[in-house]
Amino acid sequence: MEPEERAARREAKARRRGLVLVFTGNGKGKSTAAFGLAMRAAGNRIPVKVVQFIKGAWKTGERELIAELVPGIEVEVGGRGFTIERLRNPDIPMDEHALAARAAFEAAREAIAAERYGMVVLDEVLGAIRAGLVSEPELLALIASRRREQHVVLTGRNASDAVVAAADLVTEMREVKHHFRGAGIPAQRGIEF
Amino acid sequence: MEPEERAARREAKARRRGLVLVFTGNGKGKSTAAFGLAMRAAGNRIPVKVVQFIKGAWKTGERELIAELVPGIEVEVGGRGFTIERLRNPDIPMDEHALAARAAFEAAREAIAAERYGMVVLDEVLGAIRAGLVSEPELLALIASRRREQHVVLTGRNASDAVVAAADLVTEMREVKHHFRGAGIPAQRGIEF
Repeated sequence: MEPEERAARREAKARRRGLVLVFTGNGKGKSTAAFGLAMRAAGNRIPVKVVQFIKGAWKTGERELIAELVPGIEVEVGGRGFTIERLRNPDIPMDEHALAARAAFEAAREAIAAERYGMVVLDEVLGAIRAGLVSEPELLALIASRRREQHVVLTGRNASDAVVAAADLVTEMREVKHHFRGAGIPAQRGIEF
Repeated sequence: MEPEERAARREAKARRRGLVLVFTGNGKGKSTAAFGLAMRAAGNRIPVKVVQFIKGAWKTGERELIAELVPGIEVEVGGRGFTIERLRNPDIPMDEHALAARAAFEAAREAIAAERYGMVVLDEVLGAIRAGLVSEPELLALIASRRREQHVVLTGRNASDAVVAAADLVTEMREVKHHFRGAGIPAQRGIEF
């Protein structure tokens, strides 16, 4: 390798850094895009940790698929799924949701502190903030503490200005048309997200 | 199984039908969401065919990952990558792009006609329409001809009113913030999309 080439590579490596990516908005595709990114990273041999702050955004089958097929990805289910379970079963006390969210946040903290993961996905963490179950300043401090080359992906509706300010890339998924929810078409195996 | 339960299952099955899903807009995550959906469907044992109308939206590593790990998914690279290649090499004549797009469209036609695929992803087909390389009425007729339970996923900027009208779900990915493109941060292995 020529000295100039070596210098150019060193410089490129020095400039490389982990990104904060946010998928937000009321439309479909936020967790799906995060799922796709996780698969993409794993395909590039980047170990990934996914922490789910709401149960159910990723189906069991997907977690199994990932665990079986992509050894580089690990998924940890945190939250009790408060938005969904509260509708189904309002008897689950908010305390339990708070405890579950706390456990998910601790999992996130461990994943970001670990040398191992090149990408950490905090799925639906923004919903957990909005529900008052996760502290936004704590999340922002955690993200700021990550090692230089680690990517962090956040999903959920209603990214705040502070989250947007901390991000490198923010995509809003806007629902333009959602015909099938009201059209009496049942949930579709392998599609619903 | 009770007769009522059987009847309810029959009814649910009769109501089940394939959806037309569109990911559009100027933001990141369109092809990534389609990639995630394809993985999700494959995880549910739904065979998937992906036809790429623009080369490069999915990286070689991703195609290999899919081919290796998820036997249910097949990816066919159609287009010559006109948007990207035109910038790099304007000497590629438009005729070649048109031929490549035509080949991709024929692959799409075969995939949709095949019994085999429960999901067909036409990645960046909307960009190919916009570039005048694919006929929108032909695409809409093709989608309308699909068998009842087949899902079709379309991606690309600028979904037209006619495409939106034909869709069950349309999500616009809107770029809220894209800090790193102009910030001198180089492409990130496993991230760029």
